[in-house]
Amino acid sequence: MSKFWSPKVRELTPYVPGEQPRERLIKLNTNENPYPPAPGVEAVLRDFPADHLRRYPDPESRALREALAREFGVEVEQVFVGNGSDEVLALAFQAFFCHDRPLEMPAITYSFYPVYCRLYDVERRALPLGGDWRVDLDAFTPGSAGAIFANPNAPTGHGHGREAIAGLLERVTESVVLVDEAYVDFGGESAIPLVERFPNLLVTGTFSKSRSLAGLRLGYAVGSRELIEGLERVKDSFNSYPIDSLASAIGIAALEDREHFDACREAVITTRERTRTRLESLGFRVLPSQSNFLLVSHPEHDAAQLFVGLRERGILVRHFNTEALSDWLRISIGTEDEMDSLIEILEGLCR
Amino acid sequence: MSKFWSPKVRELTPYVPGEQPRERLIKLNTNENPYPPAPGVEAVLRDFPADHLRRYPDPESRALREALAREFGVEVEQVFVGNGSDEVLALAFQAFFCHDRPLEMPAITYSFYPVYCRLYDVERRALPLGGDWRVDLDAFTPGSAGAIFANPNAPTGHGHGREAIAGLLERVTESVVLVDEAYVDFGGESAIPLVERFPNLLVTGTFSKSRSLAGLRLGYAVGSRELIEGLERVKDSFNSYPIDSLASAIGIAALEDREHFDACREAVITTRERTRTRLESLGFRVLPSQSNFLLVSHPEHDAAQLFVGLRERGILVRHFNTEALSDWLRISIGTEDEMDSLIEILEGLCR
Repeated sequence: MSKFWSPKVRELTPYVPGEQPRERLIKLNTNENPYPPAPGVEAVLRDFPADHLRRYPDPESRALREALAREFGVEVEQVFVGNGSDEVLALAFQAFFCHDRPLEMPAITYSFYPVYCRLYDVERRALPLGGDWRVDLDAFTPGSAGAIFANPNAPTGHGHGREAIAGLLERVTESVVLVDEAYVDFGGESAIPLVERFPNLLVTGTFSKSRSLAGLRLGYAVGSRELIEGLERVKDSFNSYPIDSLASAIGIAALEDREHFDACREAVITTRERTRTRLESLGFRVLPSQSNFLLVSHPEHDAAQLFVGLRERGILVRHFNTEALSDWLRISIGTEDEMDSLIEILEGLCR
Repeated sequence: MSKFWSPKVRELTPYVPGEQPRERLIKLNTNENPYPPAPGVEAVLRDFPADHLRRYPDPESRALREALAREFGVEVEQVFVGNGSDEVLALAFQAFFCHDRPLEMPAITYSFYPVYCRLYDVERRALPLGGDWRVDLDAFTPGSAGAIFANPNAPTGHGHGREAIAGLLERVTESVVLVDEAYVDFGGESAIPLVERFPNLLVTGTFSKSRSLAGLRLGYAVGSRELIEGLERVKDSFNSYPIDSLASAIGIAALEDREHFDACREAVITTRERTRTRLESLGFRVLPSQSNFLLVSHPEHDAAQLFVGLRERGILVRHFNTEALSDWLRISIGTEDEMDSLIEILEGLCR
């Protein structure tokens, strides 16, 4: 506490990201991609003229937004980019969710959303999950300040199809529905084709997962022109140049390599399903997942103890110390070899 | 306007950065450095393993903060880093200036400060400049929400010495005094040595000017542990990982090359003073500058017309379309050759 802080700062409870360990561990705790970024990324690093860095980047990040617009079949004015999708989400809270009504979100979803609520004084209404821990789309109401959820959801892994999202958008028309698609490339169905029909739909995404660029901090949003303009207004009052020149060039190179992208995400999906089967045969309950992680629980073994046992043996997974999730572990999908090691250690721990 | 925007978004007036032109111009409009970054930056680009980008960066940016702490002779807990000093400033507004009292700043200073005031609902009290357009340190009052100014100031160029800043801090003790040192390396005197004496002093800086890395987006703040903790609390509620792995490695490389740093800033200072003399002999009034730009006005020639004349002849400078500044041009210091071209064209225009 400090007398120099703004009053609100005293009440903030920050988001706690997964640990970035210094020792050598098999790291299955922050949903990073086990495969390297597209080879074109290496080429950008080798060829980028250092002298170019003395100039400010394009404040509009036009080239990167054009590449994303091509990728998603939308206009460049329908694309916004930010310093990781976390920044995009934070700016979206300011742009769309600051009303005198509560914002609705699932009770279990990306744990940064409630943090933004506190930062921007947005009241939160938590909606209970439905059967099998799915996001209950019917629970969202039209009179709220907006709706936000991850699809596929985190840390549960289930994703709703495009038609289900369209159904929600037919009911909730007067406030923004933000669908966070950080994990959609691992088997989910993107809602981006719906932005033409629904001016209040904002879809966010990231280069951190399926593009193997978590270290670069690139995220984006796709929506109607009026929503993108709202984001730009806030961004231009916060930071004129959020995307550095190198990150922009690397992001474009990653988008250009469709073959590498498809090969990596298919490998992750294959490994995920293989891991599911093996975990189930060890007695784990494994939630259905369209993401690059599995949420698992064992009826006979304490999740916190399994976390510690894995960590002692060199494998880091994620255990959320909250009431709802304390019986569960979230395991990111690594390479086949990494998952072999995981299963081998769990066989010992669950014996 | 959109019904989906938060009410505040309708009222925002964004900061307008200097133009980043697509055509080839001599670019003297955004105070970029005319010299390339340290040779070590090139080496980082060539050697950085692309595969490293699939991992999240260190959310605490420890290595970069340690390098800055060494540079400034402070502890790592006294250093904060952000995505350009604009982000650092924005987070500082949230962390320190949101009180029920006005924030004080010079009437003419970095034009982003009033933009942050609107974004964060901070009332602004503008203090008239003193003689020779210097920041009047005596005008700041102890009962305000805080004080912010650039030193050297922008776009005027004058900088106060450390003892003058200490005098202000002896009077204003109960709120944060933010000294923005974006331009200090071109002949100003840094207030960083005062942070040990004054727990309410926050000094911000950037890699964009004297380190030739505007394209990379790196900024920092140095202050007491309690101020840095306040910034971290806001940052961890906004974006866990603002600094990407590559930017961090490049920033460290730039800090390590003291020789290159000194050679570039001395070259800029030499060119600035030579340019001042030549502009004065063309009849310009040139404000004293400890920065990498000159603010100039001609008694017989309209500034807006000079701006247009220069632009038509391939040179871009900055003209601020505000009442106080409409008679002035801000000219960034380029290479000797670039300034030769500028003077040659002005000789024609001012004949």
